[in-house]
Amino acid sequence: MRLPALSSAVPAITWLSRYRGPEFSADLVAAIIVTIMLIPQSLAYALLAGLPPQVGLYASILPLVAYAVFGTSRALAVGPVAVVSLMTAAAVSKVAEPGSPEYLGAAIALALLSGGMLIAMGVARLGFLANLLSHPVVSGFITASGILIASSQLKHILGVEAHGHSLFSIVGSLARHIDETNLWTLGIGAAATAFLFWVRSRLKPLLLRLGIPAQLAGVLTKAGPVAAVIVTTSLVSLLNLGQSGVDIVGTIPQGLPPVSAPPMDLDLFATLAPAALLISVIGFVESMSVAQTLAAKKRQRVEANNELIGLGAANLAAAFSGGYAVTGGFARSVVNFDAGAETPMAGVFTAVGIALTALFLTPLFFYLPKATLAATIIVAVLSLVDLKALKRTFDYSKSDFAAMAATILVVLTVGVEAGVAAGVGLSVALYLWRTSRPHMAVVGQVPGTEHFRNILRHEVTTSDTVLTLRVDESLYFASARFLEDNIYDMVAERPELKHVVLMCPAVNLIDASALESLEAIVERLSSAGVTFHMSEVKGPVMDRLKRSRFLDGLTGQVFLSQYEAMRTLDPEATARADSASPARAQAHAV
Amino acid sequence: MRLPALSSAVPAITWLSRYRGPEFSADLVAAIIVTIMLIPQSLAYALLAGLPPQVGLYASILPLVAYAVFGTSRALAVGPVAVVSLMTAAAVSKVAEPGSPEYLGAAIALALLSGGMLIAMGVARLGFLANLLSHPVVSGFITASGILIASSQLKHILGVEAHGHSLFSIVGSLARHIDETNLWTLGIGAAATAFLFWVRSRLKPLLLRLGIPAQLAGVLTKAGPVAAVIVTTSLVSLLNLGQSGVDIVGTIPQGLPPVSAPPMDLDLFATLAPAALLISVIGFVESMSVAQTLAAKKRQRVEANNELIGLGAANLAAAFSGGYAVTGGFARSVVNFDAGAETPMAGVFTAVGIALTALFLTPLFFYLPKATLAATIIVAVLSLVDLKALKRTFDYSKSDFAAMAATILVVLTVGVEAGVAAGVGLSVALYLWRTSRPHMAVVGQVPGTEHFRNILRHEVTTSDTVLTLRVDESLYFASARFLEDNIYDMVAERPELKHVVLMCPAVNLIDASALESLEAIVERLSSAGVTFHMSEVKGPVMDRLKRSRFLDGLTGQVFLSQYEAMRTLDPEATARADSASPARAQAHAV
Repeated sequence: MRLPALSSAVPAITWLSRYRGPEFSADLVAAIIVTIMLIPQSLAYALLAGLPPQVGLYASILPLVAYAVFGTSRALAVGPVAVVSLMTAAAVSKVAEPGSPEYLGAAIALALLSGGMLIAMGVARLGFLANLLSHPVVSGFITASGILIASSQLKHILGVEAHGHSLFSIVGSLARHIDETNLWTLGIGAAATAFLFWVRSRLKPLLLRLGIPAQLAGVLTKAGPVAAVIVTTSLVSLLNLGQSGVDIVGTIPQGLPPVSAPPMDLDLFATLAPAALLISVIGFVESMSVAQTLAAKKRQRVEANNELIGLGAANLAAAFSGGYAVTGGFARSVVNFDAGAETPMAGVFTAVGIALTALFLTPLFFYLPKATLAATIIVAVLSLVDLKALKRTFDYSKSDFAAMAATILVVLTVGVEAGVAAGVGLSVALYLWRTSRPHMAVVGQVPGTEHFRNILRHEVTTSDTVLTLRVDESLYFASARFLEDNIYDMVAERPELKHVVLMCPAVNLIDASALESLEAIVERLSSAGVTFHMSEVKGPVMDRLKRSRFLDGLTGQVFLSQYEAMRTLDPEATARADSASPARAQAHAV
Repeated sequence: MRLPALSSAVPAITWLSRYRGPEFSADLVAAIIVTIMLIPQSLAYALLAGLPPQVGLYASILPLVAYAVFGTSRALAVGPVAVVSLMTAAAVSKVAEPGSPEYLGAAIALALLSGGMLIAMGVARLGFLANLLSHPVVSGFITASGILIASSQLKHILGVEAHGHSLFSIVGSLARHIDETNLWTLGIGAAATAFLFWVRSRLKPLLLRLGIPAQLAGVLTKAGPVAAVIVTTSLVSLLNLGQSGVDIVGTIPQGLPPVSAPPMDLDLFATLAPAALLISVIGFVESMSVAQTLAAKKRQRVEANNELIGLGAANLAAAFSGGYAVTGGFARSVVNFDAGAETPMAGVFTAVGIALTALFLTPLFFYLPKATLAATIIVAVLSLVDLKALKRTFDYSKSDFAAMAATILVVLTVGVEAGVAAGVGLSVALYLWRTSRPHMAVVGQVPGTEHFRNILRHEVTTSDTVLTLRVDESLYFASARFLEDNIYDMVAERPELKHVVLMCPAVNLIDASALESLEAIVERLSSAGVTFHMSEVKGPVMDRLKRSRFLDGLTGQVFLSQYEAMRTLDPEATARADSASPARAQAHAV
């Protein structure tokens, strides 16, 4: 009993026991490619988060090892990502000045909180909380974040000072400082951005035309940022452009990440908690989406609660090794998968690659211009912006569109946390509103058959004394009053009525509120001389009704079929309908 | 076009145009009886709200006239009620000292806010907001309020000072002061309480045995509080018990309510807004419940949005005439109805009765002991406490029980607003959780028929290469991931699978999140060599799917019937099932 339990908590045990030569070489090749891609990314996303560049490298070492031990995805590549870096900057800059030791401490505390929350959610099996983030809200959030991130990087491309956390404040700040633009910086930044856009859209088709295999062409395309880094760094170094005002990365401390305890400050934790929750949930949702896409290609499974623990462990590892919040990256994971990664060991090898970089290569980044890093960020995040999704969502569902538009607007004008809160709140409210008005239809008998259909859509026979109402959704507290109001209105309009039958073939639940509404309906109809019946009640719903007093007070009966109900309550109308020609009725059906 | 619109906004126009002698005398008789009942109640509830006694009278004059003009219920008797008085005390004592002019001003401002909110909800047709208050939450709230109110009145029965807004603080405060008990007060209070309990439970049967008609006996029973007031007031006056420390009502200013503008203080409004919203919604829910019960007996209609405006007008009238928040009272409305009220004119006559009382009778209440008023409150509110509902709800539904228990506990320990917030929050969360795990069943063909049923409940034939999953509820953002996870798990377990069919006869909606999940399912199954199909998709759902890109990317087909799907995808298995004997299969059915 012990081992299965342990291997379920530590999935690495399962795959390590079968780890052989072929897996080793496949993972090693994938790791080398991912490492080359991750080096500029980790430096760039640290810059986006407002942190020193080495923090990006540190967040790409131990967290990868921790995820390899506890995660279940074979191909997910964990590390700093754009959206989480933006959220880190937004949350941490509220409590500390960028560049200060407190700012770094707060970023580390955020990773600690996020790790703790993810593990707690995994242990308590609360992964379903992520379900509250609807696709339109997540999609709107990612689009708005992409716009925010890209605009926040423009200052590095122009070489000016600018601040702000909303689109307006960023753009306003840029406009005020635009006359301070450094032309060397702008030249490097614009060239790097143009080059990277060209690589993204044109290089792969070109390589394919040159006869290079598709997989290799794809991997080469991902090496664009490395080429940009090498070329622009050499240029700055050779022409000594640092002296001409081009902002460079400068000294990055050499060595492995310091293993250190994160700051323990309960006030700080309380302030950062909402942001940490949001980072956890958004990071988890994005990660799961990538992991499931890749797992499905090999018919593998990704277990949500294990993933929570894996990502939680990665964030705790970041917090204890001077890093910041991490999650599974989309492009990076796809590269890892395409390059042939077979097991999470590829992540461990990547960590070794980044560790070697931190130990030996950081002096090479001294002359790396920040404009180049900003260019890699801009090109990466603009691919996240999907404004066409707005149109598609509008065409498909107005309420989903409302949630998406609200998320985008609030993220751009107020901030990331308020935006997600607005989107989730609106999604839930619109869902409750919609389900509070369940679809109902007055039905009649299709002549010559035992079927009952909507009187508005079919040519059917009805009775003057019996009203049959079919409900097409579950009855719960938000819809209970709607049901009551509808029935009272219908009864008030039909003075000759003697019986009401509620037809329930699609009712999966009647909660306590709906039950009380039904009791009130029975009582009120009874005082108006009308009896209340039900028909085609599902087994589990009937079992519950039997546990209540409802059936004792019911003035009418519960019929197994609607046909039986009509035959009992109005035999004459039923006889009329039975003897009618079905063919004729069919001909009249709408 | 003008007149019908006006008579829908002012329902009084309709009934006034047909007002004749018989209605007049019926309304007058009902009004006299309700006035006698309302005098002690209005004084008592003002005491409960921490307000001077005349404020209770003022809240029973103009608000009744306003409701008569704008409300739609023929029998609803509006005025001060216990639960709203408790909520007023809880909200107002946070911003002002009881007894101070600011306290009265805040209570008036609360009525103004509540009136404004009710009218806004009525005009914007937001009555459905009240649907968020599930029956268990309202029932738990009323029960807990009853307990809180009764315990808060014990100080008047004992004649001691005590404070507190939670059950613990009230009981603790009483315990500290119990040695200061005034025996005269306790004697009057205990005797009045015992008498009123006796009247409530024993008087009516006794009167019936004496041959008094049932209706008259019912009305006489409601006069118990008046008898207690007369007897104890005379006693205190004759024995001069005020000198012995019995707390009396004292001087009530004579005269009509002052028509005056409520305080206009935006900070105060902001502070009181949440409490005002709660008072509005709770008052509306309770009022509607009484109004609908009474209207149904005469097959009359009560229009929710008109009721909101009627109650809103009543609260505005209270705010402009020195009163406090009002709503429809349960016992009072039943008495009004039983006494024969035909139109809202009965409310106008009641208002005249209370106005005459305020003009001429207030000196008679000088010696009225507060203990008697406390006794009438205790006996009235203990009838609201329904602890058996806890047991009934527990038996019927655990999640409804959880919402109810949370409401009761939080109201008793923290306060009324936090309690309702906890109950509503928990109801919504539990509903989302439940619907995030929709019922799904793997189905197979019932041999010899074209029907498909749950393989766990019926003896059916299945195919090795085709998996059919029936979903029994709508698919939306909270359930989208559950569907994905389930399908991936099932596919991962069945390596020989070629087709997945999603059978949707009970799916009323596929929102944008569920649509993206379906797209992801199609793509991921496709990369695993499995095609995805749908069957029995409802018309409106299909219409929406046609507006999206989904059908372009669908690897399989949408079948009109599940039988057609199976016959197309696995003709062999279908042939086997078609030729099997249905009788034999029926015998094996579980």
